[in-house]
Amino acid sequence: MRPSSYADQVYGHVLQDILKGVFPPGSRLPSESDLSDRFGVSRPVIRDALARLRLDGLVEARRGSGTYVLTTPSRSLPDLADLTDISRFLRYQELRFCVEGNAAALAAERRTDKALGDIIEAHEQFSSQVARGLFLPESDRRFHLSIAEATGNEFFSMALEGPNVSLSSFMNVSLSLTRSGSPARARKVICEHADIVEAIRNKDPIWARVAMESHILQARRRMTNGDLDP
Amino acid sequence: MRPSSYADQVYGHVLQDILKGVFPPGSRLPSESDLSDRFGVSRPVIRDALARLRLDGLVEARRGSGTYVLTTPSRSLPDLADLTDISRFLRYQELRFCVEGNAAALAAERRTDKALGDIIEAHEQFSSQVARGLFLPESDRRFHLSIAEATGNEFFSMALEGPNVSLSSFMNVSLSLTRSGSPARARKVICEHADIVEAIRNKDPIWARVAMESHILQARRRMTNGDLDP
Amino acid sequence: MRPSSYADQVYGHVLQDILKGVFPPGSRLPSESDLSDRFGVSRPVIRDALARLRLDGLVEARRGSGTYVLTTPSRSLPDLADLTDISRFLRYQELRFCVEGNAAALAAERRTDKALGDIIEAHEQFSSQVARGLFLPESDRRFHLSIAEATGNEFFSMALEGPNVSLSSFMNVSLSLTRSGSPARARKVICEHADIVEAIRNKDPIWARVAMESHILQARRRMTNGDLDP
Amino acid sequence: MRPSSYADQVYGHVLQDILKGVFPPGSRLPSESDLSDRFGVSRPVIRDALARLRLDGLVEARRGSGTYVLTTPSRSLPDLADLTDISRFLRYQELRFCVEGNAAALAAERRTDKALGDIIEAHEQFSSQVARGLFLPESDRRFHLSIAEATGNEFFSMALEGPNVSLSSFMNVSLSLTRSGSPARARKVICEHADIVEAIRNKDPIWARVAMESHILQARRRMTNGDLDP
Repeated sequence: MRPSSYADQVYGHVLQDILKGVFPPGSRLPSESDLSDRFGVSRPVIRDALARLRLDGLVEARRGSGTYVLTTPSRSLPDLADLTDISRFLRYQELRFCVEGNAAALAAERRTDKALGDIIEAHEQFSSQVARGLFLPESDRRFHLSIAEATGNEFFSMALEGPNVSLSSFMNVSLSLTRSGSPARARKVICEHADIVEAIRNKDPIWARVAMESHILQARRRMTNGDLDP
Repeated sequence: MRPSSYADQVYGHVLQDILKGVFPPGSRLPSESDLSDRFGVSRPVIRDALARLRLDGLVEARRGSGTYVLTTPSRSLPDLADLTDISRFLRYQELRFCVEGNAAALAAERRTDKALGDIIEAHEQFSSQVARGLFLPESDRRFHLSIAEATGNEFFSMALEGPNVSLSSFMNVSLSLTRSGSPARARKVICEHADIVEAIRNKDPIWARVAMESHILQARRRMTNGDLDP
Repeated sequence: MRPSSYADQVYGHVLQDILKGVFPPGSRLPSESDLSDRFGVSRPVIRDALARLRLDGLVEARRGSGTYVLTTPSRSLPDLADLTDISRFLRYQELRFCVEGNAAALAAERRTDKALGDIIEAHEQFSSQVARGLFLPESDRRFHLSIAEATGNEFFSMALEGPNVSLSSFMNVSLSLTRSGSPARARKVICEHADIVEAIRNKDPIWARVAMESHILQARRRMTNGDLDP
Repeated sequence: MRPSSYADQVYGHVLQDILKGVFPPGSRLPSESDLSDRFGVSRPVIRDALARLRLDGLVEARRGSGTYVLTTPSRSLPDLADLTDISRFLRYQELRFCVEGNAAALAAERRTDKALGDIIEAHEQFSSQVARGLFLPESDRRFHLSIAEATGNEFFSMALEGPNVSLSSFMNVSLSLTRSGSPARARKVICEHADIVEAIRNKDPIWARVAMESHILQARRRMTNGDLDP
């Protein structure tokens, strides 16, 4: 087992305890050494897991006082995914943030009319499916890959998917959250896609980058912030 | 008169003609040499004005065919501002994009509890005013300056305002648009502010930067895209 | 054959003609339609190839006048690589720019002492080999991957290499150029690596990103700008 | 007195003690509460000063152990500037990083031939003066402002200078360091400028941004890292 997968497991267990209300918002987590005893792993592993929880906005370190729970993540999470997978999902979003943000900017600069047509078609298919209550990871994936392909640089789509990684497996998790959420949440996702399309249509690389980066960060936030649930 | 102010005037006149429907969406603008005759300025000035209209997403160049109108800007614009000022407003937004995007990231990293308190207070004051139908440039300015000040670097707020430039004079234009718009539009502005506050509270510099950049680009878009009007 | 590989071939042929002096610096390239006849491909393919040559700083478009040769690339290129591969190399650098720039920033934020030790060891091995005249792609690859791994996010190294892509095959081309160049050129490469190491050691994510981005752009430039040869 | 100027003073005093060898590289600084007693200021002020020293790469925090000196800054510093000004200089560089990095990218996109001519002229004047041993802040300032002006957006140069701030007063400090340094150091500054010029000439906004950001970070480093002295 890779060392970092211990941290993923600790992350998953602490997340589960936050979800169950064992650690409600405002409460203090046990100390590093208590957590180390509890999970039977070394303190650097605990520290790594806590660092990720902080980065995901779930907990906050207060100087000289400890680590406090900030927020309760989406309550639908445990039904959707093995909790030890959440940390892996969030690490993948970190890669997508830079690869897709850059791809959107390059697509805005270089897109041919044909490539724009493919993006619009993928956007309309996904939107009309969502309007009918269908959330298909494959359609979301097609939208994102059509943008990567509009760069004219095949390495961008290759960077997003590999032998054991596909966009659609990760999209499955976030689309399940969207499906289980309110219609307002689904509309917000479609609006975020529409912004990206408009920026690429207008050939505005700066806006295209920001619109894509914002969309990917919001997907993370819909997962880690249960307040956004209906 | 500075050379670039000729381009500002041409920009303003073409914008006015687009607003009046002289050049409706989908129509082709006169050629560079026709515009040059019409406005009595040299072709480089015309080219500069057209470049800005393209950058603002109002027109599009089609290879070997000319420049076409893409969209009609907000119809409330001519009541709000001297049209030759719009280009100046948009240039100022370009500076804000980089200065405030960076300031938000640094604020997220370094903000003290006191500085966060000031940001939240400014945010709540502005929100509650807007809820009562009040759109005060000075309150919007206070929100943005409280973020610049949370960097602990006085040069950020100094870069935003100078002897003849103040945030609030520019905010007056965009707030008037918001006021004349639908309640949904006002709610969207408040949500964008709330995102920035949440990112700075969570000490997430990457999200804080993207949230601020996105807010500033949306302000530009509310001005140049009349489809967003109610 | 994928459409974009036609453009790669045109790129390679024009590059070869620039290298051979058929098109010396300052000369004008044939028109799009002449190139289209010459290579028997459609004009959009020609346009794509010219766009890449412009982006690589080899040629420049002058409004209403045509495309002019700016610079002669490194004369060692044709011995090093199939010329139709150069465009592929440059597209891969475009991906590395965003993935490795971001990885360097995250490595600076999160690196453990162990991860820093691995980076320093890889840096010292590569430097001492270069000092002895050895330019091993595998050592250069190890340096870059040690930084991707210091992010604690396995997706960064996965994005750089895939089933048919490895860093070392691309590094082979640029290291051959370095080997065939002056000792000053080799020292410059080592200094660029040392800057990246110093930034990660100092935990300065902003500097780490810029140092890595700068290194990757300079590698591109060493390939496309023959003036840098001894 | 503004609260942050206490931190500037503490920063200056600790810097002076590092320069004098009171705290040599590798030694541990006194604890926060000892420093608080020593300088008669509160612990948040001490923390702020230490945070800046860390950010400038002069000291390093080791978990559970304290703050250690990493490097000795340039020994010429105390002759050049009031030490309490150093922190102010470094804060100004932080603003320049984002404003000038963005300006360089926009200049590469939009520069007219006339604007490029102004940049090249300023570059050549500064280079030939430096070759003759002359380091004039006004010439360095002219180079940087010619780039800000090539954006066609007057707000960029306005952001860099204000009623009480001018580029040349800050440049005076860094040029004095360059003058007191080796000829190799002066050549490095000129090479950094030449890279920026080449990127703007080639109309490459990505390279122009990175070249400018790199130049500004290296100026900071020449000040805080005495190892770079001859």
